[in-house]
Amino acid sequence: MTESRVDGKWFREEDPMWAGYSVSLKIEEILFHEKSEYQDILVFKSSSFGVVLVLNGVIQCTERDEFTYQEMIAHLPLNTHPNPQKYKSVNSVVLCEIDQKVIDVCRKYLPTMAGCLDDPRVTIHVGDGIAYVKSHPGEFDVIITDAPDPIGVAEGLYQKEFYEDMKRALKPNGVMCCQGETSWFDLPLITRMLRDCRSIFPCVAYAVGNTPTYVGGQMGYVLCTLDPKCKLKQPLNQYTDEQLTAMNVRYYSPEVHVASFVLPFHMRKALEGVLDT
Amino acid sequence: MTESRVDGKWFREEDPMWAGYSVSLKIEEILFHEKSEYQDILVFKSSSFGVVLVLNGVIQCTERDEFTYQEMIAHLPLNTHPNPQKYKSVNSVVLCEIDQKVIDVCRKYLPTMAGCLDDPRVTIHVGDGIAYVKSHPGEFDVIITDAPDPIGVAEGLYQKEFYEDMKRALKPNGVMCCQGETSWFDLPLITRMLRDCRSIFPCVAYAVGNTPTYVGGQMGYVLCTLDPKCKLKQPLNQYTDEQLTAMNVRYYSPEVHVASFVLPFHMRKALEGVLDT
Repeated sequence: MTESRVDGKWFREEDPMWAGYSVSLKIEEILFHEKSEYQDILVFKSSSFGVVLVLNGVIQCTERDEFTYQEMIAHLPLNTHPNPQKYKSVNSVVLCEIDQKVIDVCRKYLPTMAGCLDDPRVTIHVGDGIAYVKSHPGEFDVIITDAPDPIGVAEGLYQKEFYEDMKRALKPNGVMCCQGETSWFDLPLITRMLRDCRSIFPCVAYAVGNTPTYVGGQMGYVLCTLDPKCKLKQPLNQYTDEQLTAMNVRYYSPEVHVASFVLPFHMRKALEGVLDT
Repeated sequence: MTESRVDGKWFREEDPMWAGYSVSLKIEEILFHEKSEYQDILVFKSSSFGVVLVLNGVIQCTERDEFTYQEMIAHLPLNTHPNPQKYKSVNSVVLCEIDQKVIDVCRKYLPTMAGCLDDPRVTIHVGDGIAYVKSHPGEFDVIITDAPDPIGVAEGLYQKEFYEDMKRALKPNGVMCCQGETSWFDLPLITRMLRDCRSIFPCVAYAVGNTPTYVGGQMGYVLCTLDPKCKLKQPLNQYTDEQLTAMNVRYYSPEVHVASFVLPFHMRKALEGVLDT
C-alpha cells in the first residue's frame, strides 16, 4: 500500500511506473484521508481541478477532467456495439467495486460523478471484479474495466486469464473496453495486453485521448469485440451536436471516436505486429 | 525573469499561467544554469526524458518528446503549402532567435536537435523575430513561430500586430503556424489568437497533439494560410510509411495530420464562432 504524498500545500504523484516524472496539484483542503482494507484513500479539493480522488498515491479522477476519460471508456464500446442494452434504452448496469469505502467517499465528496449510482438501472456489487466476471458467463453486451494501474490488488485486471473470463462473460457480439495506460511509460505492457487480447478476441483496437491529470497527459483504451464484422474504429451512431449536448458529453463525439484510433507514427509502428492497420 | 525551480533532486515547473498544476522531472545532472541577457537558462539531464532545456522556469523541450512538438509545428504547415521552397527540395531556412546564448547552449547540450543548424541551407539571424518579420515583406512561403508562453519578452509574439506583420512577410499563398497553447489553461488566449487570425487570414485552423512534458500533455497549433482555396486540414502529400521512415518522423503522418484537427467536443463548441467547422 503506497501512501499519498502530501508536501505542504501540494499533492505530488510519484510512482515507479513513471519514475522521474511527476504531476503535482495544489491542495486547497484535504477532505478525507484514510486507509481502507485495500488502499490509501485521499480526497482533496485542489485549486485548479476541483475535487480529486487519489488511491495509493495515484490520481484516479478530478472533477475538472474526469469527463475526458469516463466518456471515452464508456462511449467507445457503447457506440460500437450494435444494440447495447446499456445505451440509450439502457436496461441494466452492474458496477463492480472491491472497496465499499471508495463508493462511500465518492458519494460524499464527488456527488456529480457518483450521482448516477442512484439510477434505478444500476446494481452495485461490492466485491472482486475478477471473481464476479468469472461467475457470470454470457451475461453482458458490454464490459468496461476502469482499472487502476497494475500494482498490487489490480494486477489481475491486466492478466490474460481475466481477458478470457471477460470473453466468457460477454454475450455473442459483446464488446469490452479496458483502461489502456500510456505509450510514454507503458509500451511493453500495452504491447503484451494487446497481444493477449488478439489471441482471445477476433477484433482488437487501441485508441488514445488527452487527460491532463493522467501521467503524460495521454490515456489509452483497449477495445475488443467478439463480433468479427464489427468495425471498432467506426462509431455506429453519428450523433448530431444537438444529440451530443443532450447526452451531456463534453469530450466524445463521432469524429473524436474515429480520430482517437489514429496513433502517433512511432506508436503505430511499435504496435504493427499486434494491431491490424 | 523567473528563476528555474530546483528542489533537491527535482526540477519543478510552476507558472501563474497554470497555477495549481505542476510537472516535475527528476534531475540526474545539471549541465548548465546561467542568466543570459534575456532569460534564466537551465539545461539538465533528467532521469526519464533525456536532456531538458528550461527557459525562465518553463520546460521548452526534452530529448525524449521534442519530436512530438517539432514535427507537428513544422509538418502541419509544410504539408499544406502547395510548393514550400523549404520542404523536400528546400532552398533556404531563416532561423530567428533573440538569444545567442540559447543557440550556444543547444549546440553544446542538445546536439541531436541543434545538428541541423549546420545545414548549409540554414541562415541564423540572432535578433528580435518581431522586428525581423516586419522588415522582410513578401519573402516567405512558410513562417513557423515556435514561441514560448506569452510572458515578458515573448508577449509580442501573441499580438495581432505580429500576425499582421507575418501576413505581410509571406508570399502569395503563404502559410504560417504558431504554437497554440493548451485548452486546459489558455482557452481565452486561444480564442483571442484565433479571432485575431481570422480577421487577417482567409483560412485559419486549430490542431492539437500530445506532448507529455508540456502542461496538460496537450499542445495546440494555430495554422493560417493566405490561399483561400487551401485545405489546411488535408495533407497535400500522402506519404507512405517508407517515406515517413526515410523522413525520420516519429509523430507526424498524413493520418495524424487529419486527426489532429478533430477537437474534443467542448473545445469545438467553445471555438464555434471563431473557427469554421
